[in-house]
Amino acid sequence: MARRGANQPSVGGYNEAVVLDQIRRSHGHSRVELADTTGLSAQTVSNIVQRLLDAGIVEEAGRTSSGRGKPRTTLRLVGSSRYAVGVHLDPGLITVVVLSIDGEVIARHARATPAAQAPADTTAVLIQDIEMVLAGSGIDRTRIVGLGVAAPGPIDIQRGIVLDPPNLAGWDRVPLRDAIADATGLTVMLEKDVTAAAVAEKWIAAPGGAQNFAFLYLGTGLGVGLVIGDEVVRGGSGNAGEIGHIVVDPDGLPCGCGLRGCIAVSCAPLPLIEEAERRGVIAAERSGDDPTEVDAALTRLVHLADGGDEAAEKLLRECSEQVARALAVVSNLLDVDRIVMGGPLWDRIGETLMDTVPTRLDELRVARGVHPVTVSDTALGSDVGAIGAACLILDEALTPRPTSLLVPTA
Amino acid sequence: MARRGANQPSVGGYNEAVVLDQIRRSHGHSRVELADTTGLSAQTVSNIVQRLLDAGIVEEAGRTSSGRGKPRTTLRLVGSSRYAVGVHLDPGLITVVVLSIDGEVIARHARATPAAQAPADTTAVLIQDIEMVLAGSGIDRTRIVGLGVAAPGPIDIQRGIVLDPPNLAGWDRVPLRDAIADATGLTVMLEKDVTAAAVAEKWIAAPGGAQNFAFLYLGTGLGVGLVIGDEVVRGGSGNAGEIGHIVVDPDGLPCGCGLRGCIAVSCAPLPLIEEAERRGVIAAERSGDDPTEVDAALTRLVHLADGGDEAAEKLLRECSEQVARALAVVSNLLDVDRIVMGGPLWDRIGETLMDTVPTRLDELRVARGVHPVTVSDTALGSDVGAIGAACLILDEALTPRPTSLLVPTA
Ligand SMILES: [Zn+2]
Ligand SMILES: [Zn+2]
Repeated sequence: MARRGANQPSVGGYNEAVVLDQIRRSHGHSRVELADTTGLSAQTVSNIVQRLLDAGIVEEAGRTSSGRGKPRTTLRLVGSSRYAVGVHLDPGLITVVVLSIDGEVIARHARATPAAQAPADTTAVLIQDIEMVLAGSGIDRTRIVGLGVAAPGPIDIQRGIVLDPPNLAGWDRVPLRDAIADATGLTVMLEKDVTAAAVAEKWIAAPGGAQNFAFLYLGTGLGVGLVIGDEVVRGGSGNAGEIGHIVVDPDGLPCGCGLRGCIAVSCAPLPLIEEAERRGVIAAERSGDDPTEVDAALTRLVHLADGGDEAAEKLLRECSEQVARALAVVSNLLDVDRIVMGGPLWDRIGETLMDTVPTRLDELRVARGVHPVTVSDTALGSDVGAIGAACLILDEALTPRPTSLLVPTA
Repeated sequence: MARRGANQPSVGGYNEAVVLDQIRRSHGHSRVELADTTGLSAQTVSNIVQRLLDAGIVEEAGRTSSGRGKPRTTLRLVGSSRYAVGVHLDPGLITVVVLSIDGEVIARHARATPAAQAPADTTAVLIQDIEMVLAGSGIDRTRIVGLGVAAPGPIDIQRGIVLDPPNLAGWDRVPLRDAIADATGLTVMLEKDVTAAAVAEKWIAAPGGAQNFAFLYLGTGLGVGLVIGDEVVRGGSGNAGEIGHIVVDPDGLPCGCGLRGCIAVSCAPLPLIEEAERRGVIAAERSGDDPTEVDAALTRLVHLADGGDEAAEKLLRECSEQVARALAVVSNLLDVDRIVMGGPLWDRIGETLMDTVPTRLDELRVARGVHPVTVSDTALGSDVGAIGAACLILDEALTPRPTSLLVPTA
């Protein structure tokens, strides 16, 4: 699933990952508390902590006293000890972030995705951005655990190939993972954009109950990332999360799939703008369907609605209703506890969605009387895809699992 | 989640469950092979096997020789050592089965669900059937591990309550689990019918790769049971699997949810029959909407199609197309490896579905070029719901998990 770089640092063994995970999530456990929560012996914890201290991954943060017995030394991750790079290739936006091991964004760059370019040229831009961000951050390259790439589906997750995403013109079976690995020398993993967003949301969650949510991703396309029973749902081929052909408007436009009013032809950004133009809500000023132009037109539409234009408001309300209908299908099927929304378009249409979706979703859910579903926006902003791509690497490196990529069990 | 009976036999500790699970799935491992596959020490395996032999749960089945070293004694479950009861309350059919610990149906009874009865009277019938099947089977009651009940959703899985299923007239917050537990003295678990079907399918699967499938359940209502990454998906409140409001026919009839052409109003049994009557394909001979009458009308419709009636054939083909559309939504969202179909109506419309669904599903799936999805019918027949309810108990008793109900970790 990942293309390994030659000189990547690994983090340690399985028990070390268990201890690291607890240190990361607890924000200040002592050795005694680590032994309690992990079930490992005091001696094992003590040895592991010593190795982590020696490696500079963990540091002593202070001392606490519970009033009984000796004061305890609390431990925390050293953010600057390890990093992960996250890249998000959206048809409209290329974002690169560097995340420290404790989840802080320490460097970031975003640019509009160059329009009408060959995949190789776009890949070159992307690699340039990565190198620029890394150089600008000044971090020691040997401390980078790996690089995650979030891209629109469908993807071939085993081979790291971007197949033929409907919104990435000219892309057809592009081996993006290996291209980036070859150019940077880093371990690279490819993930579908919507799933990367869900990984980010899961990664920053506080420890506690099992996560059970759908992440509605609003970018050039719409999709959902899924975390069920605390596990990221990737599906058999890494392509889970397609919602484009859920019918949300039986009176809507014909879709390529043979149905009518699928969400992909009703309220994805391009069809939304086309409808606004047909209704005369905004002028048809675009020279093409380029995501940047569509985005500019969407921004005009939202500004009109904000300024009290009734036709613009009505159109955005209709779109929100359709989003609620698609989310009702997802909720009815999976009985999730939470819906989280975000992505590159969130700052444009998020407010309208938050006005409408929670109420309508609740009216449409079959289990509405049994089980509440909370609706919220992500705390990670529009960089959530890139942050999620980086979290993918941290998750592989730091989450204790027997088959972990970066944590050999030997 | 379960209401415990007073005198239920438990099976053993966590490691015992690990060993039992291997013995069940391997159909003939020796102690040496059990140590290899479980990672437990030879001494631990030997002790556990001795306890299981003493308890009569496992027996020595024969000796095999690999040509090198001593011949090995293979082990197998003793079917008659433990049993689970499965009850399926479908609006049209009440089914009771008794399953031996090795998964054989050793007793079975089915009857049409009495029409227009108060929930208490239907519950009494159900308990009567359970006692009759148990008495007829002649099995020692102390060997029954528990009883699973599959019922239409929505349910309150925590409290064991059947809420207000659309097809069970008069049912409103009926504490079915505890009613059966009080009457029988058995440990009882309640599960949604569609999920019980998926549990059955998972339980009988050969050991190997992680299960990743959706079970399309065809009963008085339609729904799906989900197994993702080898885990049964129940959702936050045990109500996962609702597909009734997926729009499959934008030209269809209005639905109570405000949309049009939802599968619940298009090709569930009752609306299908109503449409057949509207089109004059079958005569409107029913005196009501009772599931038994609907079922009889459906049988007439299927016989007409089998006899070459073009209007009947056309209607069933349209229904299959709509089922394929709903399954495409499920497949696109979850990227499953398999679709399994079954349930009480399977013997009526299964053949038509198998003619149409695999091809149409493949045409409608977004990941069709990336990832094949196999479509098949369950090997468990129309009793799959009841068998699944019993498997739920066996799964709790025999699957190694730290929080297992019937296998104390102490
Ligand atoms: Zn469509
Ligand atoms: Zn509906």
